[in-house]
Order: sequence, then C-alpha cells, then structure tokens
Amino acid sequence: MAAWGKRLAGVRGVLLDISGVLYDGGEDGGTPIPGSVEAVARLKRSQLKVRFCTNDSQKSRRELVGLLQRQGFDISEGEVTSPAPATSLILKERGLRPHLLIHDDAGEGFSYQNMNKAFRVLMDLEKPVLISLGKGRYYKETSGLMLDVGAYMKALEYACGIEAEVVGKPSPEYFQSALKEMGVEAHEAIMIGDDIVGDVGGAQRCGMRALQVRTGKFRPSDEQHPEVKADGYVDNLAEAVDLLLQHAIK
Amino acid sequence: MAAWGKRLAGVRGVLLDISGVLYDGGEDGGTPIPGSVEAVARLKRSQLKVRFCTNDSQKSRRELVGLLQRQGFDISEGEVTSPAPATSLILKERGLRPHLLIHDDAGEGFSYQNMNKAFRVLMDLEKPVLISLGKGRYYKETSGLMLDVGAYMKALEYACGIEAEVVGKPSPEYFQSALKEMGVEAHEAIMIGDDIVGDVGGAQRCGMRALQVRTGKFRPSDEQHPEVKADGYVDNLAEAVDLLLQHAIK
Repeated sequence: MAAWGKRLAGVRGVLLDISGVLYDGGEDGGTPIPGSVEAVARLKRSQLKVRFCTNDSQKSRRELVGLLQRQGFDISEGEVTSPAPATSLILKERGLRPHLLIHDDAGEGFSYQNMNKAFRVLMDLEKPVLISLGKGRYYKETSGLMLDVGAYMKALEYACGIEAEVVGKPSPEYFQSALKEMGVEAHEAIMIGDDIVGDVGGAQRCGMRALQVRTGKFRPSDEQHPEVKADGYVDNLAEAVDLLLQHAIK
Repeated sequence: MAAWGKRLAGVRGVLLDISGVLYDGGEDGGTPIPGSVEAVARLKRSQLKVRFCTNDSQKSRRELVGLLQRQGFDISEGEVTSPAPATSLILKERGLRPHLLIHDDAGEGFSYQNMNKAFRVLMDLEKPVLISLGKGRYYKETSGLMLDVGAYMKALEYACGIEAEVVGKPSPEYFQSALKEMGVEAHEAIMIGDDIVGDVGGAQRCGMRALQVRTGKFRPSDEQHPEVKADGYVDNLAEAVDLLLQHAIK
C-alpha cells in the first residue's frame, strides 16, 4: 500500500462517524473510546474542516450532542449531519404523511406489534413508500453488537415486495450534503468510520477517501472484505488524527 | 386456459395448505373458511389421497390438529406434514444444538431482544447456521394480514451476511417428503394453497400442479404475478373440491 503521505495528500475536510468512532453507546449513555475526546479537539484546532456524519436515529440531534458534550467532546448541533432532518425535508417536499415505526426507543420499539402495524400500513397503500434512516446491519454498544435498522428495513422490504429509500449513509445524496455543509469537494475529503460497507464503501463511491478504525463494530474479517478496501486501517480515531495532522497538512 | 378436465386429468393425490385454505387463524383460535369443513370431508370420502402440508410453526402439530378438529375438520396428526419434525431430524443428523429464536408465541416472540439474542449467537459462530421454518412473507388472521417468519429470516440473513436454510414450503425436499408420505408421484399430485409463491410456485417447481384459492392471504394482484401462474384459480376450497371430484376421478 502507498505511504500515508501519498494516501492523505490534499485532504482538507474530515467526516467523522460518531458511534464506534467517538464513543460506544450503551444503556448508561455509553463510554468514549480512549483517545477520541483529545483527537477531536486536536482535529478542530487544525486547519482541517470537520463534520460529524451519523446514522444514529435513536436520539434527537440535540440529545446526541448533549450526551457527547457530557463525555467531554467538543461538538455542537450545527456540526452534525444526521438523517432525521433530511427525512423531514423529504416528507415536506413530497407532502407525505408518515407512519413512524418507532419513536423513542429504537431497540425495544422494534416489537412484532409495531413491525406488523407498519407492514399493514404499507400493504394498504397502492404505492407504498418505505423510508429507512440508514441501512446499517449492526452497531456496537458497550454490551455487545446490536441489530441495526437495516435488518428491519429488509424484513419489511421482503414482506411487502418493495424497495426502501435510504436516507443517511451510505446514500450518495447524504454524503454530498455533508460535504456541501463542510464546503469541501469529495476528492479533498476523507471519511473515518467503523463500518466497512456503510462508511468506507459509501464514502468511496462518492469519490472520497475513507479510513476504517479498529474500534466499534470493526471485526478483523473487515480487512479482507470481498468488495470494499479502505484507504487505510487504523487502530482508533487518535491514530487517524495523528496521521492526518502529519500528512494531510503541509 | 385449457378446460378443467384437461388440467386436472390424472390427479390422484391432493396436498392441502391449512392456514388460509381450511381456516383463518386468530387470537380466539380462528374460524373455518365457509365450505371448507364439508370440502375436506368430501375429499376424504373420494378415491383421492389427501395430505395436509403446512408451514405453521406457531403451534405444535397436536395443538393445530386439536384446534381444527374442534372446528369440525376430519384431520389427524398423522396426515399433517409440518416443518418442526423435519427440522428436528436435521438437527439430530448433524448433531446441532439449536438456539430457538421463539418458543410459544411466534408473533410477540419476535421482540427486538429475542432477535438480537439470535443475532449475537450467529455472529459468535465461526460457521453460522440459520434454519428457518418456512419463508412466508405474510399470512392471514381474522384480524388482518400478519408478518410471517420469512421477514425475520431476511432480517437475520442481512445482519449476519448469511443465507438461511429453509425447512418447509417452498423447499423441494419438503414437498417431496409430503408426496412420499402420500405415496403419489409429483405429476399425479396437486397442491391447493393461498400463497402464490410458497404454495403454487413451490409445488410447480417440484413437478406438481397447483391451484390458488381466493381465500386467506390471496390478493387480486396474485393472478397477475410476474413469475408464477397457477394451474387454476378458484374461489375457495369448496370450489376446488367440486372441480376435482368432477374432473380428476374417472
């Protein structure tokens, strides 16, 4: 693989995934990943532009940012791209009246009863529209791996014989809106995430570079993924920031 | 379409789906579909061989048969092919120790917690094996359409990046074991079901003929299904039996 200097040359903006990169969520609010609080602070003191790009839809942007601030992270609501506001815009533009599968508790909310209610709403429509906030397979909490929304999206797609529209990573529109908000072109940006498909593959398909961290839901087999190859694998965000500050900025 | 005489010529054995053909299930035990109790009785008095072929895994075979008998159906346990005994055999043959996703209540049992538990068991295995009892998209209860096991199978397949082994309709082994139990060749048998893909398509792929009833989960769009065309569509089991007794037996 090329030297880091070559791989990181010309990077002006950094997109950071939150869950599994900054912190691991959990019932108690979760815990920061060692070194990440300082890494974010160093990144923000540098010349690099920074934006947080998450699929988290369990909490509102305000709640998520509050939780991270209490853990010591330098982050504000305006710096976060999350799927809920984007979805809200789509609903308004198309004049859609949504049935919300889950409200407060994304985990427990995926009960048979709630899934069946959403299924029946879709089957009653002549042209059913299923919008999914992300399509992640799983994420990491302090207690272990957790089934993510993508699994439930697939269940409804199969039952109804339809295809969902995904808002959030890895949809190109979503990455592009984060780039626009940061004021950086795709070829000048790098994504840092723990999801080889959603973060790394998604960003690369948009013309960005991408690093995978060995934290969060990372599994060793990801480094041999049959379709996606990251521009680099790093132990954690702290290592990624070390490399960026050393090689991206001249 | 050819006349019924031609379409039903040479039929010696009849496979009957249960849910949506004999009765619609429900919290109160469900209700027989009008005319089906008499239709089963007439069929069993004829020269045709009869076997019941169901994917129902919510109840044990004994419970299901008891419920149907109380509704007036002439049916015994030995006449029913259901996926649980077949699965049990597979587990024994391969020496597998199963984690059961659900026990008693297939509906409510599909909680986020139970799904996540099964997901973690699979992710912890080096060679994960997921066995699904059927892969139906949905079925019909008296209260309306209900999400079926196939949707949850798809959710786990996607989350774990694996493919499930399906025991039950529409797997060919399953239809073939029902034919064997009936002592009839595929070309001499006809399946009667409410599921255009699982019942009709599955049976036809095994060389059988198949009728779809317009009861249970039948939807008018099934008659224009892009891939599966039944050998005939009938309003209900009673009409199917009328036709069989008139045309199949000479």
